[in-house]
Parts: sequence; structure tokens; C-alpha cells
Amino acid sequence: MIRNLTTVRGIKCWGAHIGIKSMRRDLAIIHSEVPASAACTFTRNRVVAEPIKVSREHIRDGKAQVIICNAGNANACTGDQGRKGAEAMAQAAAEKLGIAKEDVLVASTGLIGEPFPTEDVVRGIKENMDKISGDAKAGSFAANAILTTDTFAKEGFMDFELDGKAINIAGIAKGSGMIHPNMGTMLGFIVSDVAIEPALLDKAVKACVDLSFNMITVDGDTSTNDMVAVLCNGLAGNTTIASEKDKGYKLFRQKLEDMMIHLAKLIISDGEGASKFVEYEVAGAPSDKTARQLVRAISDSTLVKAAMFGRDPNWGRIICAAGNAGVPFDYTHVDLFLGDNEKMVQVLDKGQPVAFDRNRVKRLLRESNLRVKLDMNEGEGQGRGWGADLTTDYVMFNSVYTT
Amino acid sequence: MIRNLTTVRGIKCWGAHIGIKSMRRDLAIIHSEVPASAACTFTRNRVVAEPIKVSREHIRDGKAQVIICNAGNANACTGDQGRKGAEAMAQAAAEKLGIAKEDVLVASTGLIGEPFPTEDVVRGIKENMDKISGDAKAGSFAANAILTTDTFAKEGFMDFELDGKAINIAGIAKGSGMIHPNMGTMLGFIVSDVAIEPALLDKAVKACVDLSFNMITVDGDTSTNDMVAVLCNGLAGNTTIASEKDKGYKLFRQKLEDMMIHLAKLIISDGEGASKFVEYEVAGAPSDKTARQLVRAISDSTLVKAAMFGRDPNWGRIICAAGNAGVPFDYTHVDLFLGDNEKMVQVLDKGQPVAFDRNRVKRLLRESNLRVKLDMNEGEGQGRGWGADLTTDYVMFNSVYTT
Repeated sequence: MIRNLTTVRGIKCWGAHIGIKSMRRDLAIIHSEVPASAACTFTRNRVVAEPIKVSREHIRDGKAQVIICNAGNANACTGDQGRKGAEAMAQAAAEKLGIAKEDVLVASTGLIGEPFPTEDVVRGIKENMDKISGDAKAGSFAANAILTTDTFAKEGFMDFELDGKAINIAGIAKGSGMIHPNMGTMLGFIVSDVAIEPALLDKAVKACVDLSFNMITVDGDTSTNDMVAVLCNGLAGNTTIASEKDKGYKLFRQKLEDMMIHLAKLIISDGEGASKFVEYEVAGAPSDKTARQLVRAISDSTLVKAAMFGRDPNWGRIICAAGNAGVPFDYTHVDLFLGDNEKMVQVLDKGQPVAFDRNRVKRLLRESNLRVKLDMNEGEGQGRGWGADLTTDYVMFNSVYTT
Repeated sequence: MIRNLTTVRGIKCWGAHIGIKSMRRDLAIIHSEVPASAACTFTRNRVVAEPIKVSREHIRDGKAQVIICNAGNANACTGDQGRKGAEAMAQAAAEKLGIAKEDVLVASTGLIGEPFPTEDVVRGIKENMDKISGDAKAGSFAANAILTTDTFAKEGFMDFELDGKAINIAGIAKGSGMIHPNMGTMLGFIVSDVAIEPALLDKAVKACVDLSFNMITVDGDTSTNDMVAVLCNGLAGNTTIASEKDKGYKLFRQKLEDMMIHLAKLIISDGEGASKFVEYEVAGAPSDKTARQLVRAISDSTLVKAAMFGRDPNWGRIICAAGNAGVPFDYTHVDLFLGDNEKMVQVLDKGQPVAFDRNRVKRLLRESNLRVKLDMNEGEGQGRGWGADLTTDYVMFNSVYTT
């Protein structure tokens, strides 16, 4: 049995081809039969796509019932015309469903700066809303309809028990595409049937995004359209989680984090032109925050990424990138390990190079799943993140495929 | 007549091969016959090479008489052994010249984390100090002896008149090399015979570095060894510049800025694997500082750099990179122009795409010298910077050339 978005109680989906893209599905609908607690995170880019502006307003009351996403046109840098288009998307869905437009979240991904095809999208919404279904197939259609240059759909499902009830949680995501002028938008839509207060869900979502989607990097740019939305409709029937002290909160938060990390890793695995998946870990930091800053600085360094492509046990670049992270960093305390999931080899011991078999490490680095672990030996803070390597294919994708 | 470092009154140089590198010159000496006003800027990386630590101490009094630089070994991440090596460099030069070791500035560039070859470097200094010469040839030898993977030596010379005296200013620089484990160290050494107070020189140097060396990017990483040093020995005989209000200050500061920008541009022209030289300009910003932040964010964006390689008039990536600069940015006010030194084509007008002949712009972008100009239309602030494109060759250089 396939389990995905539609396994979650009360969730119906659809993914349609409405003609914004030439061939592939380009309109996704995720619907909850009852209003759900909802929380979002949005791009930190100062240039914000129109649907993000609309969804920011609609999420204010912590409630939503449907997510509508189109692919093929980002509705970014489109001005007033685009704003009206994003509002029309929400309006069309709300009218069709007989709900308030504030209960509709909208998202877009695709070309920047092209006029938004409002008429096509509105017609697409109206024509497809009746098709929403609880079939697993419909969940996969939605997962496919949010893709741009992704090479595969990204889905996840898990369940756990709370108050003797089975709680379902499922999500879809997209990332990957950097081909002009798509800006590598990252989208994540997660649904659960857990019952949780909106304010608490918001807290959990923000914390989990910081540990997952915010810890992956393909090329360091944040798109105008990035958005993560989580709907929890309460149909599992657990006692509503209403406090951080509730035993269910910690459990749900952990599952949400696991789901987001799963989706984030899938995004990295599908990074454009990427040949390697690298997990970066920093331990022994003065704080978790410092550890995460170091992870981001290292995983986003062009030179480190190129070294990963070249299977080069190049600790100098890692130390140099860490020194550029903008946090106090004393390399003379640092232990550094390189390897894969099976085996890690220490290359630095308290800042001193360790004699290691360079050819053995280079063989290790041939694996497509690599690990880099840096221990600052200064405190209890830790962080993890994930990145791709920088390949000649990446450059070709992002340059030769011109407009 | 060749004019370079040694044209400056009282400056003698040498560049020797002392065996740290296999073939090329690897020890540079720049000497002033009288103590000079001196000022430096150093890397902002938290991991700092040993010679940087020594030079930081020696520059405190605002005086120096000689710069000693070796190539081939960065003396970074070398701990106590390296610190002693950097001190021995200064000590050896001071003894040979009969001056205080505090009047010696030391610098290194090359491999990180390798034990520093103190004995070879000290012997090299002792054997070559007597060879310093005022010949133009000796100036070029010094320019060559600081290179690593650079493909050409970077030199500049200019003169101007002040108080009826001809003032000379000359400089050398290195950049470029990102090949493991060299961290792309940027060095700039400038000498002048102008008379200027040390505190004022320090002010001028910091301001000019912010407008030149700090506005270039190949891959965004700051090396452990970056250093710019300026010596002004006063032998031109002008009235010593002692106040920002002196007419000579503004003039000298402008010439120093011109020299640093000249050297910075040469570094970019020699960027590893780079096929294009791009000048980025931001105008109409709320402040110069904001303009420079935007220039840096745009010129350092992996996606923008790949688009330049691909000759892609991809304004979406430029706007997105600007939105990630961490400064308030309203794209709806922005005018954007792409082109080369001859011709600029407007692609955005107050955030709206301008109909332009895409093929004509793509032809423009085939030039190896490109220009990108963004006008925020919000104030008087402006900034300029320079960058290379991201090429498949860059990735190959930095990955396949493994340890």
C-alpha cells in the first residue's frame, strides 16, 4: 500500500496539467476536509514573490484549509498584475470550495519576471477542484505538479502513536532547479491529522525548518518563492496539543523534524548536476547556533564543494571556510574527520594534521554519500546540514542553457 | 624605460628562488633605504596565518623598512613551529640590515598546514639580502616571487605632482590561485616616496582597500594569509601630509585608490579558469555602504557568475542575488543595464522588464569584459566591484587537481 499525503485523514489532492508548462503537471491542490491549524515559513529574500505576500496575510490567523501551487511561472517581479493573479488564485479556490479566501494558501514556482497567466491558472483551479481525491495516486500527482527541473518527485510519510491514536504525517517538496530564470525555489508542503494549537504548531514549524530546509545548500541563493507550509487538521482525534509541556508536543516536533530532514535530503540528492550528497556535522561548539553557522559556511564554500567533487581530502579549505563563518573559531582545538556512512578517518587532531593514508581517504571520497565532521572541542553545541558538490555539470546547466 | 617598484626613490628589491617551490622564484624582498610610514590591512578570516600575526605586531608603530614574502608555503595552521618560523624570517632580515625586527613586515603564500621550512627561508633571506637592487629588473623579480598559481605578474606604477615634487607610487600583487591547498591568497605591496604621517596613511589605506581589494571576488572565500602593505618613505621631499585637510591628502588618497583598483582588476583578470572580467556598479543607493554590499552580493552569486559564463542576460538572478544582500531592496525602483565598455542595454526599467533584443544582448555578453549596472533610484550612494565568471574550467582546476 502506498502511503503519502492522501493517507492523512481528511486530506485530498490533485495534480493537473493546465498548460503553464508544456508537458508536465503544473497545478497542485492539497485540501483538508476541515479547517486545519496551519503554519508557514517564507523566503528571507528581500524580493518576495506575489503568492508569498498573499499567503503571509492568509496565514495570520493560524488556520488554512487548502494549498494551491502552480509550477512554470514564479509570479515574482510581476508587480500589480502578479499580485492580482495571486489573489485571484486564492479567490478561485475559495469560491469553488465555499470557504473564506483567507483559508487558502498559494504558492508558485518557475520563471521570474514573466507576466502571470492568471486566466489559465484560475480556469485550471476551477476545472480541477472537483477532481480532488483521497487516492494515493492523487497524492503523487500533487507531488509531481510542484516540480520544475527536479528529476524526481519528493514525498515522505510516517506515522506514530499518541493518546492511543495513530497520527499520520506526510509531505512533499521541490528544490533543485536553478536553470534560468528559475531561482531554485524550495517548496515544502506537509500535512498531518494531529490535533495541535496553531501557535504551538507555528513554533514547531519554525524550529524544525531551522534544522532542516535551512540547513541545506546547493548554491547559497535564497529564492524569491521559498515557502514551507504545514496543515494539521486534528482528525486523528488526539487530545489537542496545547502546551510545550504536553508529552505529545515533543513527540510531534521530533516527527516533524524527521519529515522535514527527509524532504530536505531528497532536495539535495536531486541538486542540479550534483554527483555527491554530503552530510556536514559540527560538534563541540559553544552553542547549537554557532554549530549551525559553521555548517552553513563550510557546506556553502565554493572551494569545499569543488574539493568534494574532486574527492580531495582537503582539510585546509574546510578550516578556511570555517574561519570565514563570522563566529569565533580556534582551529588549534579542532578535530576533523572525513569519510562516508561506514567509516570516518581523522585528518586533524587539535588542529594538527594526522598522518593518514591519502589514497585510502580518496577512495572513501569516491562514494556518493560523504560525511564531514568537525569537533570544536569547546562546548556542547551541535548542528547538522547537507550539501551537494560543485560539478562541471552544475556550471553547464546554469550557463549554457541560456535564455 | 620600465617603471615599477624600484622607480620609487630609495626602494630596492629582489626576487630569488630559494627552493620552497620547485622552479619559480619564491622569496621577495622590498626594501626602503630609510624607515617609512607604513600601514597594512589583514585577512578577516578567524584562522590567521603566522606571518600575519607577526606583521600585525610589527605594524603597530606605523613604521617599517622592509617587506619579506615567501611563496610556496602559507605558514598557516602550523602552530608554534610556524610562529617561530615567521619570527625567524623577520629576525634574519633585521639582523642582515642592522634594523629592529619591528621594522620588518613578513608575508607568506602557498600550501596550508605544511610545516614551515624555516631553515631554508632564513638561509634564503641571508643569502639574498645583499642582492637587493634599484634596477627595474629587481622590481619585476619581486613581483614574480610572490606568485603561486598566477599566470602573470601584477605590477603598477604612476606618478603625480605635489608641492612641485614628482611623487612616485608603485605596487605589486598576487591573487588567483585556488588550487589545493592554496587558499587563493591575495597580497598587495605598494610603495611610494610621498611624505605622509603614519596615522593618516593608515586611514587612507583602509579606505582604499575597501574600494578595491575588498570589492573583488573570485569565489568569495577569504584566505588565512591576505595582506596589503603600503610603505611611504618620504624621499620625494614634499611637505609631510599631516591632515585630511592638506591638499596633498586628497590627491594621494585618490592615486592610492587608483593603484589598488588597478592591481585588484589584474587579480580578477587572472582568476582561475575565468573567461570573463565583469565590472559591477550600483548607483542610486541610500548609502555607499549599501551600494557596496549589493555589489558584493551580486558579484559573488554562484548563479550570476554561471550566467555570465553562459552569456545569459539573466536579470532574474541579479535581482534575486540583490534581494539576498541583507539590505533593504525594492526591485520595483530598479533600473538594470547589461553590456560592455562600449554599449549598455537596459533590461529593467523601475523593476519592469524592458523589451530588448535578446540576441543582441547575448552577442554583447560574448565580450570578455562585461559591465552590469544597477540603479536603485533611491539616493546618492554608489559602489563598484569586479568579478570573474564561474566556468567549468574553474571547477576542474579546483577539484581534479587533487592532493
